[in-house]
Amino acid sequence: MKALAIDLGGTHATCAVVEDRSILASEVVTTDGKTGLKPSLPGIATSLKKLLEKTGVKASDCAGLAFSFCAMVDSRTTRILSTNQKYDDARDLDLQRWTKSELGIRLRLENDARMALLGEFYAGAARGYSDVVMITLGTGIGGAAMIDGRLLRGKHAQAGCLGGHIPADFEGHACTCGAIGCTEAEASGWAIPIVARERPGYASSRLAKEPAITFEAIFRLAEEKDPVAQALRDRCLKVWASGTVGLIHSFDPEIVVIGGGVMKSAHIIQPFVQAYVEKHAWTPWGKVKVRAAELGNNAGLLGAVPLLTESI
Amino acid sequence: MKALAIDLGGTHATCAVVEDRSILASEVVTTDGKTGLKPSLPGIATSLKKLLEKTGVKASDCAGLAFSFCAMVDSRTTRILSTNQKYDDARDLDLQRWTKSELGIRLRLENDARMALLGEFYAGAARGYSDVVMITLGTGIGGAAMIDGRLLRGKHAQAGCLGGHIPADFEGHACTCGAIGCTEAEASGWAIPIVARERPGYASSRLAKEPAITFEAIFRLAEEKDPVAQALRDRCLKVWASGTVGLIHSFDPEIVVIGGGVMKSAHIIQPFVQAYVEKHAWTPWGKVKVRAAELGNNAGLLGAVPLLTESI
Repeated sequence: MKALAIDLGGTHATCAVVEDRSILASEVVTTDGKTGLKPSLPGIATSLKKLLEKTGVKASDCAGLAFSFCAMVDSRTTRILSTNQKYDDARDLDLQRWTKSELGIRLRLENDARMALLGEFYAGAARGYSDVVMITLGTGIGGAAMIDGRLLRGKHAQAGCLGGHIPADFEGHACTCGAIGCTEAEASGWAIPIVARERPGYASSRLAKEPAITFEAIFRLAEEKDPVAQALRDRCLKVWASGTVGLIHSFDPEIVVIGGGVMKSAHIIQPFVQAYVEKHAWTPWGKVKVRAAELGNNAGLLGAVPLLTESI
Repeated sequence: MKALAIDLGGTHATCAVVEDRSILASEVVTTDGKTGLKPSLPGIATSLKKLLEKTGVKASDCAGLAFSFCAMVDSRTTRILSTNQKYDDARDLDLQRWTKSELGIRLRLENDARMALLGEFYAGAARGYSDVVMITLGTGIGGAAMIDGRLLRGKHAQAGCLGGHIPADFEGHACTCGAIGCTEAEASGWAIPIVARERPGYASSRLAKEPAITFEAIFRLAEEKDPVAQALRDRCLKVWASGTVGLIHSFDPEIVVIGGGVMKSAHIIQPFVQAYVEKHAWTPWGKVKVRAAELGNNAGLLGAVPLLTESI
């Protein structure tokens, strides 16, 4: 089965033509979450048409357009429910009409972490499993849950997809979502500079001399035995691992897949979380597998075929 | 529809004959979680037969026996999966055979928090809602989730039912379940003496002079402005409210029902959690209702008819 796919992030959209578990062609279009989605739509449409031409695929041969969106999305009604400081105009855009008029095919929208889960389930680390939790560690923390081969969506389409917004510390930092001490507020890309600056010894640490407080810098300096970076890294590992136990206790998966940009340090994160889960999760049936995502930035695109063939 | 019901707690089993939303007759039988379930089975069978006689109901007129059990249960296979220091012998008992031979009817087992949810959904605070989270605050903390009118069970029957075992503090207290900082380990009946004794000023507080550190004592002394009791009460309220936000973010309910023995202080707990949820939960569709359970100890018994009529 062929499909068109868009994976929209905060600063770019990846457009693609996919066939089953392969990406036939893809292209990145620059976007800007702050100014909104509307100004980027013409460029996205042009890119998709170019990719169709390049691959010799007709739009009418595609099962539809699968649109992975970095927001709370109701795929059943093709509506964007809530944005969080990115593409805030998207709630008022009629993307179904846009897809129909530009490409003549149907649209299905879904949240980006759910799309990553579908991709990993169909073509990546979760192949062969029916009960899956996905965690994406990046600027924010995303989550998604699949039970018995079906994405968990819930009454208002937000079940499972706020995995980054489960409190890890009931007295922790304020989160952009409005809650307190979410895993995202304690150990995400946007939160880590706030957490780092509170750390005793930060001002005189090597981290303070970096151009920016990033996970890349923290993991690099921790390897080099900088004590502040080590303490921060270890704290993040604990937050992620504790959050993973919470998601296991909530959704009862066989496997947890961890993706996102921070997984450049998968060789440290995966074994830590796996060991923590084996020690601390209450799963009398056996051991939950913890795996690094395999598809990287392609996961959301490869979720296209399972999304478009899903009956909901 | 008529049914037999057993609600098993740590120190007693309530046996009942129910008809739809009414309890026709019930009786409490003393049990002992530490010595196991087997020694109590004859007394339970005698009690159920006596109740049948008293109400003039024949066992064969009952849709079955619904057994609410304080453990991890797979109702699909009628198996007890994991006990936590209560009735540890129950995993090896053939309760289906026992029910058939004593009463000649079928058995369905379910976890006690799930049964309380079913009861409140069918006859109590959650009537008319299809998407429900139940929290039971007591010696332990139980949880259960219903999505689209169906109990969430998951691959290994533990989805949704470990709501008390979501970490509230990733660096918190060790929990009996093996995890760290669970809401149960921070703010349940068994945990609160541990947390209280660590509190600055505890040794010279009025709480230290009580015969036991209980929620009853803490809420009473907090009303009387004892500063240690006030700090403990406020900490518990925050743990429960933060945990509730996490469950809302996980399961996307319309309503959260809070039950359990601690809800003797419902007049303080319900408004606090409702206000916290309104302030901190990310629910763009509207406001989640937070309600005190209405059925008290009858909730598990009144879950009998929905359990026995559920298709799974």
